Amino acid sequence: MPDFTFRLNATDGLARQGEVTTAHGVIRTPAFMPVGTQAAIKGVHFSAVRAAGADIVLGNTYHLMLRPGAERIARLGGLHTFMNWPHPILTDSGGFQVMSLSELRKLDEKGVTFRSHIDGTMVALSPERSVEVQNLLGSDIVMQLDECIRLPAPREEIERAMRLSLRWAERCKRAFEGAAPGRALFGIVQGGDDDALRVESAKALVDVGFPGYAIGGLAVGEPQAVMLHVIEVTAPVLPADKPRYLMGVGTPDDLLEAVARGVDMFDCVMPTRDGRHARAWTRHGPVNVRNARHAEDPRPLDEESPCEAARIHSRAYLHHLTRADEILGQMLLSEINLAYYQHLMQGMRAAIAEGRFAAFRDATRAAWARGDIPARD
Amino acid sequence: MPDFTFRLNATDGLARQGEVTTAHGVIRTPAFMPVGTQAAIKGVHFSAVRAAGADIVLGNTYHLMLRPGAERIARLGGLHTFMNWPHPILTDSGGFQVMSLSELRKLDEKGVTFRSHIDGTMVALSPERSVEVQNLLGSDIVMQLDECIRLPAPREEIERAMRLSLRWAERCKRAFEGAAPGRALFGIVQGGDDDALRVESAKALVDVGFPGYAIGGLAVGEPQAVMLHVIEVTAPVLPADKPRYLMGVGTPDDLLEAVARGVDMFDCVMPTRDGRHARAWTRHGPVNVRNARHAEDPRPLDEESPCEAARIHSRAYLHHLTRADEILGQMLLSEINLAYYQHLMQGMRAAIAEGRFAAFRDATRAAWARGDIPARD
Repeated sequence: MPDFTFRLNATDGLARQGEVTTAHGVIRTPAFMPVGTQAAIKGVHFSAVRAAGADIVLGNTYHLMLRPGAERIARLGGLHTFMNWPHPILTDSGGFQVMSLSELRKLDEKGVTFRSHIDGTMVALSPERSVEVQNLLGSDIVMQLDECIRLPAPREEIERAMRLSLRWAERCKRAFEGAAPGRALFGIVQGGDDDALRVESAKALVDVGFPGYAIGGLAVGEPQAVMLHVIEVTAPVLPADKPRYLMGVGTPDDLLEAVARGVDMFDCVMPTRDGRHARAWTRHGPVNVRNARHAEDPRPLDEESPCEAARIHSRAYLHHLTRADEILGQMLLSEINLAYYQHLMQGMRAAIAEGRFAAFRDATRAAWARGDIPARD
Repeated sequence: MPDFTFRLNATDGLARQGEVTTAHGVIRTPAFMPVGTQAAIKGVHFSAVRAAGADIVLGNTYHLMLRPGAERIARLGGLHTFMNWPHPILTDSGGFQVMSLSELRKLDEKGVTFRSHIDGTMVALSPERSVEVQNLLGSDIVMQLDECIRLPAPREEIERAMRLSLRWAERCKRAFEGAAPGRALFGIVQGGDDDALRVESAKALVDVGFPGYAIGGLAVGEPQAVMLHVIEVTAPVLPADKPRYLMGVGTPDDLLEAVARGVDMFDCVMPTRDGRHARAWTRHGPVNVRNARHAEDPRPLDEESPCEAARIHSRAYLHHLTRADEILGQMLLSEINLAYYQHLMQGMRAAIAEGRFAAFRDATRAAWARGDIPARD
């Protein structure tokens, strides 16, 4: 089994191109991780997720621990076997969804107790239990339990949550000791939109020492400028030889701008969620397929897409499927979006490797700014 | 363009194995046609429909004429191009769904007028318009407009509808004159559960003359024995050198028994509808994947299935997906069911060709009767 390693192949400005090696294979960075909330990428076969270019997918600890249960998945051979995805998997800690999905939660130094949204039972999640659950799932990249708070928030509240997350980081590290080779635990920088708290959090985590670092607590409704500023403040504090993961982000433009600031990994439900709501992403920017202008348009969404579904189906057909609420419409658009996201990452990786990231970023943004191809007369 | 032809390759008892040649390719019979109601097979990519072994799919005229509209599909190149299925397509006449889905319908000699369930507009469907719509769609096999009534019904009502359907059959034949080669119009035998009316209907249709004949008005809730009796009464009246299509049928057992009585073609929503409701079909019979006994079963649904999804995913995973309401569960089970249906048809075709249909039928039914593999201890 290979050790967990990160190799930086090239840098271009602050943008980085590298490779994370895990027990289940290599992740080319910058990497986008499709989200498989409940051991499934919504509406897309894993074979298509892989074919689109994904090296790694994300699983949600909160959902999986409640249903079907981490112990059950472990008895069934772990999450890779369970969902037939033999490639790398990252699992989150469960903390974010405890905050956003469950009622009646009680948070203290020890951890968080919440009521399951599925069957109403009370469930406890501590740093140690979060690591245990992720170990049971067998994920390649395990995330520390942290406390995410919504922005804006008072500084004292941000600081309290950040310090609690730091203490939980140390407990997670102890709990993760002795894990099999090829797996890694990432620490998560918190600190809201406060520069000093972000720097303090990042430095303290680096002192504890992790094989990778995430920037958490973003993608919670703040403006893009705030998010990019937090990256600019945080990334320089993180070691150059470890991967950096921006959690829950984002739009294609977010990815481009975050990579330009030194981020290596991303996850977001946007490509599949948008796909279920008739929104397609292409090199021309977002396209609302339900819009009447597509109703009789025989042209594909993007004739130059590497994704067959974006090339062979007419806009009129995709429009019809979404209007008729056909599952196939959700399936095709989710696949098209995942493929576009991966295509964008591949473009960034190649551009960084060849020292032309700035030009790639400009050209990509210019194509988005020109917008979708005009409707036919 | 080849002419529309039917070639009988082999018979075994009353069971027949043949080939229907159409403008868009050959249909091996006995054939099962997956139903693509709204220009999509629910939850299954057309590539998987094809890979499962389908030679032909069915489109619903009622749905397609209302949305996106037959004229629009024609402007977009026809239904084959519209939905990216370059193989044979059969379309129904729209009549059955007018009866089952629309309110405020008025039926007279001329045709039927109904209120669209989509936008409330009043729509007229005559024999001539039904053929025109199916011509616009470009289907390879066009069905006459008929009047379907629910059983049980008074004999006078069955007779009235049967005679009306006969007059409409003649009008459809005139309307279809001059169609491009490789396409065909099928007449539909009506007459409910009345032997004399069925025979009269079949004889009269044969006198009019069609390149294929359907048995309609079944699969409307009658016992299987009634359905099989109607086939036994009707099939001998139909010419041996034309394909026979039993509309809207059925379960795997219905298919086996109908083929044993001389039927060549079938369509049914069951494989995909069941797939969306956690019901899988395998050589062991129906399996309810939601059942708790599968929750921790690492075994596949059927390790000998030609369908990868039935072999590589555990019962526990499929169970989880259906419990978690994941689209992927509907997708996988629909594909598994379509594949089983096609596998069954392939088995019947091979058995008839080799003169061992009775043994195949017995062995298949015996395997179903033994039921699903037992739960693990």
